[in-house]
Amino acid sequence: MDAHERGYFTEEDSVAVVTGRNANAKDERLREVMEVITRKLHEAVKEIEPTEAEWFEAIQFLTKTGHLCNDWRQEFILLSDVLGVSMLVDAINNRKPSGASESTVLGPFHVADAPVREMGANICLDAKGENMVVHGRILDTDGKPIEGAVIDVWQANDEGFYDVQQKGIQPDFNLRGVFRTGADGSYWFKAVKPKFYPIPDDGTVGKLLGALGRHPYRPAHLHYIIKADGFETLTTHIFDPDDPYINSDAVFGVKQSLLAEFKRTSDPERARELEFAGDFWDVEHDFVLAPAKG
Amino acid sequence: MDAHERGYFTEEDSVAVVTGRNANAKDERLREVMEVITRKLHEAVKEIEPTEAEWFEAIQFLTKTGHLCNDWRQEFILLSDVLGVSMLVDAINNRKPSGASESTVLGPFHVADAPVREMGANICLDAKGENMVVHGRILDTDGKPIEGAVIDVWQANDEGFYDVQQKGIQPDFNLRGVFRTGADGSYWFKAVKPKFYPIPDDGTVGKLLGALGRHPYRPAHLHYIIKADGFETLTTHIFDPDDPYINSDAVFGVKQSLLAEFKRTSDPERARELEFAGDFWDVEHDFVLAPAKG
Repeated sequence: MDAHERGYFTEEDSVAVVTGRNANAKDERLREVMEVITRKLHEAVKEIEPTEAEWFEAIQFLTKTGHLCNDWRQEFILLSDVLGVSMLVDAINNRKPSGASESTVLGPFHVADAPVREMGANICLDAKGENMVVHGRILDTDGKPIEGAVIDVWQANDEGFYDVQQKGIQPDFNLRGVFRTGADGSYWFKAVKPKFYPIPDDGTVGKLLGALGRHPYRPAHLHYIIKADGFETLTTHIFDPDDPYINSDAVFGVKQSLLAEFKRTSDPERARELEFAGDFWDVEHDFVLAPAKG
Repeated sequence: MDAHERGYFTEEDSVAVVTGRNANAKDERLREVMEVITRKLHEAVKEIEPTEAEWFEAIQFLTKTGHLCNDWRQEFILLSDVLGVSMLVDAINNRKPSGASESTVLGPFHVADAPVREMGANICLDAKGENMVVHGRILDTDGKPIEGAVIDVWQANDEGFYDVQQKGIQPDFNLRGVFRTGADGSYWFKAVKPKFYPIPDDGTVGKLLGALGRHPYRPAHLHYIIKADGFETLTTHIFDPDDPYINSDAVFGVKQSLLAEFKRTSDPERARELEFAGDFWDVEHDFVLAPAKG
C-alpha cells in the first residue's frame, strides 16, 4: 500500500482522505451531506489559506456564538440569517409555480395560538401608532378566489417591537390575528403601520455585521402564514417599499414581489366607516397560493 | 433599479446579493474571507438542498457543540480535527522544502514549562510500561548536524493518558522533557512505549463519528517541537507503524514520513547499559529542519 491507499493525509488529497473514512456511515444521506460539507470546507480553507491565528479566531467565533444560544436566543440562526443561508434554504424548499406568491423566512416571532378574529377586526389592541387597513384576496394560480383560506398575520408595532418582546408593555396577542376567507376569497383587517427594527446585535453576529460595515435592521413588514386545503402553505411577508432599509434587509428577506404599496390616504368618509380619526394607511395585496404537490 | 440592483434575494444570485453587502468592510482580509465562506456555504447548501428539518438539525449540532466548549474542552477544535481541517491548516502553514521533516498537528496536551533534562534521561517517572529508548540526530537539509537544537518531547503513557489527564495518578511532567543537542546534533532519551487513545467521544463530535461508522482513536505517537536558531520550528509526531489504528487516525495526523520503526530488542548488554531489565523498544529517528524563511 502507498500513502494514498493507507489514507494518510496530504494537502492535495485532503478531501478524498477524509471522506474516504465515511464509507461505513449508517445513513446514506448523512454520508452524502458530510461529503459535500467536507469538500466545500476544504475548498474554502485552500482558497483562504488561513494563518493558524485566523483559524483559531474562527474557532473562538463559533464557540462564543454557541455560548450566546439559550432558550430565548439563537445566535447560530442569526448567523445563518445574515449570511443569506436561511433565505437560501427557504428558497430551495419553497420553489413556486409561475404566478404564485413567493415565500420568505418565518422569523422567530410567530406564536402558534393567536386568536381567530372576525374579518375586519383591528389587531392593534393598544391604539398606539398610525392607523392602517390591509385588504386583498387569496387566489389560486388561475385567479379564482379561495374560500376557507386561513390567514395568520403578525407584525411589530410602531416602535419595531413584537408583543412577545414587550410582555407587560403591549397587550398579549397585540398585532396578531387569524382570519378565514369567505366565498369571495377576500380578507381585510385593521392594524397600525409597523416600523423597522434591528435583529439582536449585541453578540458575535452583531459584531461581525459591524466589522463588515453592515447595519442590523430589517425593513418594516407584516408576516403571513396562509393555509388552504389543496394548496401549499405560504409563509411570507409584505414590505413597505418606502422603508429606509428596504434595499438592505439584514437577513435578505425582501423580494421584488413582496413589496406592497402603503398608501397614505385622506378620505374622511372611508375613515369614518373604518372608525379611524383622520388620515390612515391603505395597503392592498393579493396572495396567490400554489396547488399542493402530488 | 431592478431587483438585482436593489440587492433583493434570489436563489440564482444568492452569493452576489449577500457578499455585495460587504463592500464597506473595515478590513480587506475580513471582506475576502467572508466572500469565500459565503460562496462555499451557498455552494454547499445548493448541492445538499437541505430540508428545513435538516437545516435545523445543523443549527442544533452547532449549538450543542458550542455548549460543550469550556475552559478545558474545545469541541469545535475536535470538529475541525475529525473533518481534516486542522491538518489542512497545518499543511498550508508548514510547507517544507524537499528533504525536511514534515509537520503534524500540535494537539491539546503540550505544556509550556516542561523540565530541561540531561541527554539520556528517562522521562518516564513512574516506571510503568515497556521500556523504550529513542535516539537520532537533528540535521539540516544538507545532512549536517545542528548544534544547540532544543527538542521538546511529550507522549501518552502505556494506558494512553497524558500526565495532565491524570493529575494525582501520574507524577507531574511524567513523559515530558526538553533536551538540547551538542555539536554532533544527536539526541537520546529513555521512556516507555506509548499507547493509542481516543479523542473525547462523549459529545457531538463523538456522536458524529459514530454515525459515520468511524472510531475515535489516535494511533500511538510521540509529540515533538524542535527549535534551532536559523531554522523553522518543527511541530510533529512520530508514529508506531504497527499500531492497530495507524491507517485510521481519527484526526488524520499520520503522514508516511512520520512512521518510525519501533524495534523490539533483546540485547542484554545494551539493556544493562540503559539500566533496563530485559527486552526493550528501540526507536531511531532523525529530524531534518528547514532553514528559516526570509
